[in-house]
Amino acid sequence: MKRIGVLTSGGDAPGMNAAIRAVVRVAHTQGVEVVGIRRGYAGMIEGEFQPLGPRDVANIIQRGGTILLTARSKAFMTREGRAQAAAHLKNAGIDGLVVIGGDGTFHGAIKLIKEHQIPVVGVPGTIDNDLYGTDYTIGFDTAVNTALEAIDRIRDTAASHGRVFFIEVMGRDAGFIALDVGIAGGAEIIALPEISVSPQEIAEVITRSAEKGKQSSIVVVAEGAYPGGAEALMRAVAELTGLEGRVTVLGHIQRGGSPTAKDRVLASRLGGAAAEALIGGASGVMLGEVEGEVALTPLHEAVGNRKDIRRELYELARVLAV
Amino acid sequence: MKRIGVLTSGGDAPGMNAAIRAVVRVAHTQGVEVVGIRRGYAGMIEGEFQPLGPRDVANIIQRGGTILLTARSKAFMTREGRAQAAAHLKNAGIDGLVVIGGDGTFHGAIKLIKEHQIPVVGVPGTIDNDLYGTDYTIGFDTAVNTALEAIDRIRDTAASHGRVFFIEVMGRDAGFIALDVGIAGGAEIIALPEISVSPQEIAEVITRSAEKGKQSSIVVVAEGAYPGGAEALMRAVAELTGLEGRVTVLGHIQRGGSPTAKDRVLASRLGGAAAEALIGGASGVMLGEVEGEVALTPLHEAVGNRKDIRRELYELARVLAV
Amino acid sequence: MKRIGVLTSGGDAPGMNAAIRAVVRVAHTQGVEVVGIRRGYAGMIEGEFQPLGPRDVANIIQRGGTILLTARSKAFMTREGRAQAAAHLKNAGIDGLVVIGGDGTFHGAIKLIKEHQIPVVGVPGTIDNDLYGTDYTIGFDTAVNTALEAIDRIRDTAASHGRVFFIEVMGRDAGFIALDVGIAGGAEIIALPEISVSPQEIAEVITRSAEKGKQSSIVVVAEGAYPGGAEALMRAVAELTGLEGRVTVLGHIQRGGSPTAKDRVLASRLGGAAAEALIGGASGVMLGEVEGEVALTPLHEAVGNRKDIRRELYELARVLAV
Amino acid sequence: MKRIGVLTSGGDAPGMNAAIRAVVRVAHTQGVEVVGIRRGYAGMIEGEFQPLGPRDVANIIQRGGTILLTARSKAFMTREGRAQAAAHLKNAGIDGLVVIGGDGTFHGAIKLIKEHQIPVVGVPGTIDNDLYGTDYTIGFDTAVNTALEAIDRIRDTAASHGRVFFIEVMGRDAGFIALDVGIAGGAEIIALPEISVSPQEIAEVITRSAEKGKQSSIVVVAEGAYPGGAEALMRAVAELTGLEGRVTVLGHIQRGGSPTAKDRVLASRLGGAAAEALIGGASGVMLGEVEGEVALTPLHEAVGNRKDIRRELYELARVLAV
Repeated sequence: MKRIGVLTSGGDAPGMNAAIRAVVRVAHTQGVEVVGIRRGYAGMIEGEFQPLGPRDVANIIQRGGTILLTARSKAFMTREGRAQAAAHLKNAGIDGLVVIGGDGTFHGAIKLIKEHQIPVVGVPGTIDNDLYGTDYTIGFDTAVNTALEAIDRIRDTAASHGRVFFIEVMGRDAGFIALDVGIAGGAEIIALPEISVSPQEIAEVITRSAEKGKQSSIVVVAEGAYPGGAEALMRAVAELTGLEGRVTVLGHIQRGGSPTAKDRVLASRLGGAAAEALIGGASGVMLGEVEGEVALTPLHEAVGNRKDIRRELYELARVLAV
Repeated sequence: MKRIGVLTSGGDAPGMNAAIRAVVRVAHTQGVEVVGIRRGYAGMIEGEFQPLGPRDVANIIQRGGTILLTARSKAFMTREGRAQAAAHLKNAGIDGLVVIGGDGTFHGAIKLIKEHQIPVVGVPGTIDNDLYGTDYTIGFDTAVNTALEAIDRIRDTAASHGRVFFIEVMGRDAGFIALDVGIAGGAEIIALPEISVSPQEIAEVITRSAEKGKQSSIVVVAEGAYPGGAEALMRAVAELTGLEGRVTVLGHIQRGGSPTAKDRVLASRLGGAAAEALIGGASGVMLGEVEGEVALTPLHEAVGNRKDIRRELYELARVLAV
Repeated sequence: MKRIGVLTSGGDAPGMNAAIRAVVRVAHTQGVEVVGIRRGYAGMIEGEFQPLGPRDVANIIQRGGTILLTARSKAFMTREGRAQAAAHLKNAGIDGLVVIGGDGTFHGAIKLIKEHQIPVVGVPGTIDNDLYGTDYTIGFDTAVNTALEAIDRIRDTAASHGRVFFIEVMGRDAGFIALDVGIAGGAEIIALPEISVSPQEIAEVITRSAEKGKQSSIVVVAEGAYPGGAEALMRAVAELTGLEGRVTVLGHIQRGGSPTAKDRVLASRLGGAAAEALIGGASGVMLGEVEGEVALTPLHEAVGNRKDIRRELYELARVLAV
Repeated sequence: MKRIGVLTSGGDAPGMNAAIRAVVRVAHTQGVEVVGIRRGYAGMIEGEFQPLGPRDVANIIQRGGTILLTARSKAFMTREGRAQAAAHLKNAGIDGLVVIGGDGTFHGAIKLIKEHQIPVVGVPGTIDNDLYGTDYTIGFDTAVNTALEAIDRIRDTAASHGRVFFIEVMGRDAGFIALDVGIAGGAEIIALPEISVSPQEIAEVITRSAEKGKQSSIVVVAEGAYPGGAEALMRAVAELTGLEGRVTVLGHIQRGGSPTAKDRVLASRLGGAAAEALIGGASGVMLGEVEGEVALTPLHEAVGNRKDIRRELYELARVLAV
């Protein structure tokens, strides 16, 4: 392998730049050139390529977002789109790819491998932590800390006013962010997609909390935990209790920001390992970190299996809200 | 004067604790006792009093929210409520009051003075900065920096995806937060209650921006700048341009958090000056900072006059978005 | 067991409060009372006890330091001191102890168990991460992120001036903080107690970096990596290269601050598990997290064995500094 | 005027990038080209110029340091050096200059104007706030908040251990940072270059504090407040009291980091005003903000006069430490 490409795709996640940097520098050390592909698969179809040397990735490890930009590409979902992309890769002399992203990114990679025999390895870059084959995805730790900081701020107001706050965090299908943020933020209740909690139960907990002398409560709600999200859940609880809670939807602030140390180290490690694996002949695998060690998982397993939240942490959260 | 009361009322604002601390310690130095009144006027009606000595306010200068809690009291809007509150003050031997809050807080104070001849001085504690008689209110600087941090995060995503983001900040009637945050956040457009900007204009600016090669745009929207807020404004622009922007409502995170240096210094200064003024015989005035100096403004002027935003900053913002 | 004690000892670490909260609430759920012992073993000798109910530990999960205070006690190193401490425990009806701290804390616990047959379980609370039997200690993640934030700031100046900065982080005997911070901060060189790096090598790396066009360099130095610390190391390098670097010793800022999400979750988990284990009859063990699971390690092993840094990360750091 | 130059010189300060951006965009709006001069006067002598258009300064408002780099130039202190620099300006068709920096920067500008009749206007960019003719310099607010955050962290440890901490902040000749940080950080004592405080006095305050039940104390020391700085001052106090305090020198972390809202707004305003003034024919003046309004001060007055700290704030600090 003489030249490899790297791209970021799907939702941006803090640490993607650290991963790009590691890919570039590890490949360089092994005598392999790196080409950056802009705007993910969309840019691949358009041939938006730029050479990336070790100096080009200086001073980016601390930056949120992705210097290569990212996008979701409908054209790449068609056979024609992928053929055009593959042609661009061939023209540019790109022998293999590192793709950094989540579910959708890996689905695209699987097709590219199958249809065009281009070696591709994946790096899990998504704040949702919903990929099988890695204990943590790149960006998750930063997103959790950003959401936590917001909750700490809201708690000041909640405590000062004696109010109940419903805080919606990201997570349509997975409750990883909600669970960690809920425990760390001292939430009374955590509503997850994985474990249903009814408005009745929440109403009871809040009522009991008030009786025990708690002047304020925080309810952390994952986007996908209740149809209509935190706002609808609050309304349902309000109808039962008469108590009007406040709602805050954290939204996009959870995506950005300078990555935490953990995300930078993880991204450096997995980005570097991905470059090494690709150059060493691997393809169709995702590089993850499992129990502290770098681990390879076939891409179709990474996207096909469901990673469960840690149930014992959910139980702990209930006890700690006593 | 032997004993004075202090309370916080209305929306909580970072720096309220620093103001309480200054009231307590300056009064103590002058040989005057301080009584903390919990939950603002609501607690005054219930007689929720607690003595506050210099040690009781140790280690609170850095905390958001208010250790005295705050509330909005409907009962205090009635003559009976105020009479009951005044009776509690008399029973507790409280000779005067420092009230920390905004508009509504000062309206209450004006009535208390008139109906019960209790000396009251006000300290401007509100994130909105919409009080006449002070260049800045306590909490404003922190709120602006919190909103700015959120915008910096969102910019990472906006830039990575080439998207337009509409970010709603607090400010129903006043655009102070939006203006400062908009300039500091490098917003393309700032929508304020004071200066109307139509969806047409915004559509034109965004279209022109894109033509000039800007891949992403930030639109900062004060709550009260458009009926329905940022969401409605985005929809109106989307109808004109076909471009689907993203919306984030920062909401309550803007209220909380550890106060900035500026808010702590301002709160220390105004809290201290308020205690001094009250003990020295003042009443019916708000302590503010005008052009760097402590200034007294009659409470009815503070709430009756409108403070305008700095128009030249708004013009500057337009030029800088070039 | 009807009543257990909890204390924090040694250097304070962010997350200690979250651990205290978990001990109190989990014990409460199991019908066991908790007594807080102030100032670690020093306060135990003086009988400084206070009951801790679930409400007493509300709103502390986000706070740095320790509400129970901490100290190092010389008296407790004597047999008499420990006898006096044990007598106080007996008088207060305390049937067992959870001690939160590091090496020294656990040495004390081992003696207390042996001499007075008081059941004790340990929770690893120290920023240094130098305890065997847990992948991470409580406080480590926060300390790393605090140091990293400082390095990010310094990099602004380093890059603007084209300078070499030597930054000293905590770690007399262990390089855990330095290694993670070095990778995450994009350091050119990381000097650790575990792996010696000579001034010559550093001089060569810096000279080569400059030749490759790097305008500035960051050298991360663990306290114990070189006799005299970062200052002495910089001087030694300056003598070889003529290049005068700047030195910053991060010092005590690394200890404090609101804990990260990871430290709060870890502390909640281990604190809760410690209370459970103690109540369930365990003694002489430390609760740690190993490969994602709660694990028990005998206290004498936790303090007797050396945990090594991850050598492959050190190698990665070298490659990434290319 | 068709083309102007802009440079940053001396110590870097957060907000310099925001000022550069404002210079470029305001000049562009007026039809004037901008050339960026790298590494301050050093780069001017070497002719290190680069054109700066509106897009080149996108996405820098939030960055610490300076994209133009900065340096201190000995060559520019010689008449020959300045002649060479002036020749480069002439060759590049640069008709005037905006220089962003402090004292030394303005001294250089004065000579350039006098010897080579090149119009120059100054923008006050320095964290020290020691320039006459502006209430605040660009970077000061950020530096104060950075130092404050560090003190908040240290307070956690100080409170947990019952210790006295001496914290050294920047300020060789001026105590602006120390004074604001001291008040905002709730310091027991603030040692400034402007107001001498002896080890005896400090010893007395600390002893009295301990008697009043304060378990810990923070002493904020400006670099230039005592010969040998905080370390020497602590030793002198230790000799008198026997009490061994801890010392932390905040150092270079105070320079970097993303600028606060206030610094970004100030920099935007003064940078824009400087471009306008220069294009409008001004020279030999500094643009400052005085009592909320933009004000022009002759450069020789800005460097020749001494701005005093606000003495009443110092008095307030004493009272609040009660």
